[in-house]
Amino acid sequence: MTGLMRAETLEIPEAAARLDGSRAAITDIATRMRMLSPPALVSVARGSSDHAANSWKYAVEIGTGLPVASMGPSVASIYDTKLNVSGLAALAFSQSGASEDIVALSAALRDGGALTVAVTNTPSSPLAMACDHTIDLAAGPERAVAATKSYVNTLLAGLRLLAEWREDAALHAALDAAPDHLGQALVADEQITNALTVAPWAVMLGRGPGLGIARELALKAAECCTMPAIALSAAESLHGPVAAIGPDTAVIAVGHGAGMDSSLDTLSSYGIKPLRVATAPLHPMLDPLMALPTLYLSIEQAARARGHNPDAPTRLKKETVTR
Amino acid sequence: MTGLMRAETLEIPEAAARLDGSRAAITDIATRMRMLSPPALVSVARGSSDHAANSWKYAVEIGTGLPVASMGPSVASIYDTKLNVSGLAALAFSQSGASEDIVALSAALRDGGALTVAVTNTPSSPLAMACDHTIDLAAGPERAVAATKSYVNTLLAGLRLLAEWREDAALHAALDAAPDHLGQALVADEQITNALTVAPWAVMLGRGPGLGIARELALKAAECCTMPAIALSAAESLHGPVAAIGPDTAVIAVGHGAGMDSSLDTLSSYGIKPLRVATAPLHPMLDPLMALPTLYLSIEQAARARGHNPDAPTRLKKETVTR
Repeated sequence: MTGLMRAETLEIPEAAARLDGSRAAITDIATRMRMLSPPALVSVARGSSDHAANSWKYAVEIGTGLPVASMGPSVASIYDTKLNVSGLAALAFSQSGASEDIVALSAALRDGGALTVAVTNTPSSPLAMACDHTIDLAAGPERAVAATKSYVNTLLAGLRLLAEWREDAALHAALDAAPDHLGQALVADEQITNALTVAPWAVMLGRGPGLGIARELALKAAECCTMPAIALSAAESLHGPVAAIGPDTAVIAVGHGAGMDSSLDTLSSYGIKPLRVATAPLHPMLDPLMALPTLYLSIEQAARARGHNPDAPTRLKKETVTR
Repeated sequence: MTGLMRAETLEIPEAAARLDGSRAAITDIATRMRMLSPPALVSVARGSSDHAANSWKYAVEIGTGLPVASMGPSVASIYDTKLNVSGLAALAFSQSGASEDIVALSAALRDGGALTVAVTNTPSSPLAMACDHTIDLAAGPERAVAATKSYVNTLLAGLRLLAEWREDAALHAALDAAPDHLGQALVADEQITNALTVAPWAVMLGRGPGLGIARELALKAAECCTMPAIALSAAESLHGPVAAIGPDTAVIAVGHGAGMDSSLDTLSSYGIKPLRVATAPLHPMLDPLMALPTLYLSIEQAARARGHNPDAPTRLKKETVTR
């Protein structure tokens, strides 16, 4: 059976390649960021886009040594705060570019003196109008409620901006290879599908740039499979929520590396052995991302096996209005 | 039955009053922050302390218009990043002050040029040694695995620093009244206890400064009641995870105000009516906090009703070592 979520997941490699059309805009913004030399950065986003912003935050912090603050839209939309952000740079991530609160915070950041950049799949959106610059995600129309290809392109666009800003040849090379690697990952993982089909609830573990990916997968599992799903830092999981994991909990770890391995060793001593997706290593900031096509397809299949239509999640619409 | 978690929850008002002993240190740090006039701030924390840092972030962003970045300890402990934070101020929150990764990131922030402040219940700890200044939480010895009085004092200390920094008389007055208000909240809420006793899983909703409180309650419910528990921004909940909420899910909303009310109206249209704790209004930045004694006692009772000892959560120790 082919539905929208599955079809759009299969388009991920070609959508990723299409991001090359936004390269000139990204180069221009990177040049301005080098000139500005901000003491800190701000991200603005909700939902899936905020999970992409979280991965971007780790990549920027590790790549530049500068902190990135995720600012809640309510600071502007509810609390009506006058911001004091002269000399800072702010990226607003939104597939639709239509959420009123994201637009309100972006406008407040621009009014407060920040260089503002809209990262959106809709370059004619109110968000793009409210920002100084725009990066077009060029993912193509997305009709599934569950964002897939636009989520991947959000991650890739943020990393390309970082690579341009820092003139990072290794990150550029990895991004050039990303569409091919994503193409190789277009197959569900049977073990993960089975675990998500029978489990009463799921825990997604990530670390560093994989934490935002884990959050996104928990959201996808909750909305498509109609099951409780929590994302945790693999390190944080040892601080408390591990108490609730039982033998039938689906536990899935995203990403590799020393930090993840040491946390998983501790979990293993409790008898918890998370499932992991094998991907060919590309670059530490990109590796968790490369697991996404496989995980989307696995969640999509599990949703159907549980008797849910992943293209019609309960109570959800494509665009959510919040203030 | 009286256990450690219950006994320490009942000590919250006197522990809160004891924080007055740290007032001179807080005043001194606030003076330095006014002189520094940082373009952005950084928080460093894990687990419960990180949930307190999240509430502090909202209060600082709303109160000053400056962004606060929550930096993941792994940026220093795993990725060994040289930080570029000259002129910024960083607060590191840790009850024990002993977590190696929190200490490593705090040291990296100081080496990178930030003004660093340890907020800890252990002023002789490695964290205090690694920072320029220390705020002693003065909560007294905490022996329960689930932090209660030290969590409340972390929130109060952060707000007192903000009040001193901004010379905010209304916030000072509210903080002066906090121990009395907390004393009035030392009673469990029967509806919430019952919901947490029978529900298969729980959702805690918050907004603005209430979001960190909701995260903390989800952690407490998971570790004490051995049940899946998720915290969501009341606004974010409309973006996806709402799909998984069923008629038997325990849904608890923390905090009040326009933003929370508009989100709850939408949830209500889906038939979801969260339980709320009634507290006398004190100050928008403090109101979610005032519900904590009631919620701790409710969770503690529900844990026992579910057959668990809240003082001996599965797999957990008082101090968690992560890197």
